[in-house]
Amino acid sequence: MAKYVIGVDFGTLSVRALVADVKDGSELASAVYIYPHAVMSEYLPNGRKLPPDWALQHPQDYLEGLTEAVHLAVKDSGISPDDVIGIGVDFTTNTYLPVDDRYEPLCLKPEWQDNPHAWVKLWKHHGTQSYAEQMEEKAIERGESFLKRYGGKVSPAWMFPRLLETLKEAPDLYAATAEFIEAGDWIVCQLTGQEKRSLGMAGYKAFWSKKDGYPSEDFLKSLDPNFEHVIDEKLSRDIYPLGTKAGVLNERGAAMTGLPQGIAVAVANMDAHVSLPAVGLTEPGNLLIILGTSACHIMLGAEEKEVPGVGGIVEDGVIPGTYGYESGQNCVGDSLKWFVENCFPAAYAEAAKKAGMDENQYLTYLADKLKPGQSGLLALDWWNGNRSILCDYDLTGLILGLTIASKPEEIYRALIEATAYGTRRIVDSFEENGLPVEHVFACGGISKKNAMFMQIYADVLNRDIRIARSSQTPALGSAIFGAVAAGSQAGGYDSVEKAAHAMGGTSSTVYHPIEENVRIYSELYEEYLILHDYFGRGENNVMKRLRKYRE
Amino acid sequence: MAKYVIGVDFGTLSVRALVADVKDGSELASAVYIYPHAVMSEYLPNGRKLPPDWALQHPQDYLEGLTEAVHLAVKDSGISPDDVIGIGVDFTTNTYLPVDDRYEPLCLKPEWQDNPHAWVKLWKHHGTQSYAEQMEEKAIERGESFLKRYGGKVSPAWMFPRLLETLKEAPDLYAATAEFIEAGDWIVCQLTGQEKRSLGMAGYKAFWSKKDGYPSEDFLKSLDPNFEHVIDEKLSRDIYPLGTKAGVLNERGAAMTGLPQGIAVAVANMDAHVSLPAVGLTEPGNLLIILGTSACHIMLGAEEKEVPGVGGIVEDGVIPGTYGYESGQNCVGDSLKWFVENCFPAAYAEAAKKAGMDENQYLTYLADKLKPGQSGLLALDWWNGNRSILCDYDLTGLILGLTIASKPEEIYRALIEATAYGTRRIVDSFEENGLPVEHVFACGGISKKNAMFMQIYADVLNRDIRIARSSQTPALGSAIFGAVAAGSQAGGYDSVEKAAHAMGGTSSTVYHPIEENVRIYSELYEEYLILHDYFGRGENNVMKRLRKYRE
Repeated sequence: MAKYVIGVDFGTLSVRALVADVKDGSELASAVYIYPHAVMSEYLPNGRKLPPDWALQHPQDYLEGLTEAVHLAVKDSGISPDDVIGIGVDFTTNTYLPVDDRYEPLCLKPEWQDNPHAWVKLWKHHGTQSYAEQMEEKAIERGESFLKRYGGKVSPAWMFPRLLETLKEAPDLYAATAEFIEAGDWIVCQLTGQEKRSLGMAGYKAFWSKKDGYPSEDFLKSLDPNFEHVIDEKLSRDIYPLGTKAGVLNERGAAMTGLPQGIAVAVANMDAHVSLPAVGLTEPGNLLIILGTSACHIMLGAEEKEVPGVGGIVEDGVIPGTYGYESGQNCVGDSLKWFVENCFPAAYAEAAKKAGMDENQYLTYLADKLKPGQSGLLALDWWNGNRSILCDYDLTGLILGLTIASKPEEIYRALIEATAYGTRRIVDSFEENGLPVEHVFACGGISKKNAMFMQIYADVLNRDIRIARSSQTPALGSAIFGAVAAGSQAGGYDSVEKAAHAMGGTSSTVYHPIEENVRIYSELYEEYLILHDYFGRGENNVMKRLRKYRE
Repeated sequence: MAKYVIGVDFGTLSVRALVADVKDGSELASAVYIYPHAVMSEYLPNGRKLPPDWALQHPQDYLEGLTEAVHLAVKDSGISPDDVIGIGVDFTTNTYLPVDDRYEPLCLKPEWQDNPHAWVKLWKHHGTQSYAEQMEEKAIERGESFLKRYGGKVSPAWMFPRLLETLKEAPDLYAATAEFIEAGDWIVCQLTGQEKRSLGMAGYKAFWSKKDGYPSEDFLKSLDPNFEHVIDEKLSRDIYPLGTKAGVLNERGAAMTGLPQGIAVAVANMDAHVSLPAVGLTEPGNLLIILGTSACHIMLGAEEKEVPGVGGIVEDGVIPGTYGYESGQNCVGDSLKWFVENCFPAAYAEAAKKAGMDENQYLTYLADKLKPGQSGLLALDWWNGNRSILCDYDLTGLILGLTIASKPEEIYRALIEATAYGTRRIVDSFEENGLPVEHVFACGGISKKNAMFMQIYADVLNRDIRIARSSQTPALGSAIFGAVAAGSQAGGYDSVEKAAHAMGGTSSTVYHPIEENVRIYSELYEEYLILHDYFGRGENNVMKRLRKYRE
């Protein structure tokens, strides 16, 4: 009899639950719950104004979303909940909750709800750049060896700069916090009743490694005397590999999800990384580009190599038995969304409506007629800062080449091209540092919906790009990890490889580079690099100086 | 009995006729005729496609506009045409017609109508950058002394690069042309039956000076052997000072305008320059900023000083008895128009409509709430290239500092600020080179309509700015020159000074700099200068390189 697994994917604005067949990964049904509080960037729920560039979330949205989405997906699939053998969960990372010793979020307590630091800080929360810089400088000064696994950079999104921010700016709250926990680990804890800290999250976001563990207390002390024991005081040192079982669904978890008590729950995974098995990728030499609001590039390597500016090399961090290299871009779909919301003229809105297209479809329709370089525009894709290579969240976006003849679709295309150049810069960095990128894959909404976008990427990268079979790879990936957590005895699998090959894969769509476009884009990419280094490497720090006036 | 004069102002998109009282310049009525062909930038009237960045006009629009506007203004004013004693005309410059020996435009002849070079090239026509550079290099190499009166630069808009373009790219048409004539001189010729080449136009646009005349044939030959005799073959050497009478209205002119045959017609003037007497300015130390689609800055000096990058120092060129310094910016209202047409979102359109505001009013309403620097944005105002200081039409616009929080009104304000920085760069150049800018005045639509815009200028320039009384200063200025052409015997004036003091002046509006804004803007201006020089002076020629892909 058929067995099923549930994958639950917590994204930036919503949570999705998927019911997948354990045998071949076929997707029976899925359901999405949109967070009522979305991203809180201007006000707290009680109306208190936030400083600029904050990005917070409400943990109640996660729990309600989990319940709603799983119930609806299971109902729509028509299966019996009794045939479900496991659950996997993935979550956005750098998404920390300060909780008390009963894992209750502090932001839900009346005494802390007024304090912005009590809420869940999202990956794109801004404000920790200076702490990241301080940490990076100290680590370089002290010759801390962990830094080389993170491209020599400390991202302001990672755990320690965030905790430093709270320690310095909200010391009372810091003191009152029993633990800072990744939202993914917190959800697993809600389902099973016990915390099992995920290796992926600890490795990529908190400098943990199988070989060396966390950074030393001596180093942490050098950042602030009160930071010395942060790990023992505020984090968990018990780290669990991906693909292992975190525990079983307890009574409360069963009540929330409507699934049978006692089924396997996988250790939490990361929303980008979990896509690899869903595309069938488990071997070194493969690069997966996950395209959404932001982009993530996960590269599997056979060895540990230093790659400057590419953040996060973790043994077993994505697929057990390989080294997972993570890099990313903070603004891909987000800059297009920004453009559509802020710069889509009324005349275009009317024309798009007549043509029965949404804004992105209409702009793509027009932009697709343009040849590479024809607009004369060039952009830097730093609307949310630069995450990899420069690792600087204070950088901002730029558009150059504007004339009174410039059209919205030209700007739109230039924004897409800029993200493609940013990706190429990362791919070049892998290759220059001894990590051959043999095959490129893409997944995520844009990869399925926008052929022009993917052709630009194939042309800029000068590589074939293969597209995922599933349009919800994170949820499918989580389901795969659920099947591994259940194990073969319960009808699942005993390794991520086996599960990935059975349940994941690509579609028949392949984008091949077009020679003439490759030639022009390789020239334009050189122009991009000049601006990238001029504005990004300190020659002209105007972007950082201008930021000061905003605050 | 009251006497009247007619000022006719030919602008970029329309012609305006004004009826003014000779005694005090009071404005009885005015009328505007919008050119049916506007600016032809994509197609010729016969549908032939134009290359990118061309900007042509149709001479028939000028004649029809003259007739319509003058008739309507006189009718609306209620005066008797018999009380009109003179006409003055001003025109956009760098607006050349190739004509035959009867002053018939070649573009109106069937054999030439297909040739884009036969049409009237407007000031913003693009395509002559390389000829200007060639001319500049040759002039520097040969140590040509005329160059120092033009800031050491040759603008691609000026006459000789334009004629070189026609010689090289349409040699047949060049050969068939009896004369290349400024549209202003051509209109005066249509009214009086005889050509009287304007000193202003020859001085500012064709390197002519009272002392040295035109550039030497030897120099012109060095550009092209067939260019040696261009002056004798294709131009007029008879130059007439501003404020003199070009002739009297002949039978045809009287029929066209409905005005009495025999009244005085002034030598043609330049659309920007003619505003100075309308604001009452005739003395050294005064700077007038004329704000419209583009901006022009006219500075009156007592002496001839070299000002690098500030194009055009002409003795008697604006007001007889002073040295007129001309500089300009190619894109002021134009970039705002571009923004409103291409980036004004549908949601804003709705809100503006509800508020009863047009796009510019609504964006200004929102942008006015922003403090200097608050947006974190900085722009370079080169949507139409850079006219003064860098004198490079291949430069393009830039916006920097963009984030997903950037709002349309923030970009709009940044575009205005960029034009203010561009103006400050020019004012600084005057002062650094020994030309004290004692008083600053502004005229043109924006100066009367947009208080936020003018406050930004006052803050960026750190100077009081006084605003013209008239909202149609070019037409009033032309009327003033008409009164001078008529002379005191006919009821007019015998000098530009006397006429300007009687008929021109300022309103009571003065913008005073706000100290806190001055401080922030002076810092942001330093940032502007770094980008200005980096992109404009060859350190990174990316803007010019990108242009090549457009073509």
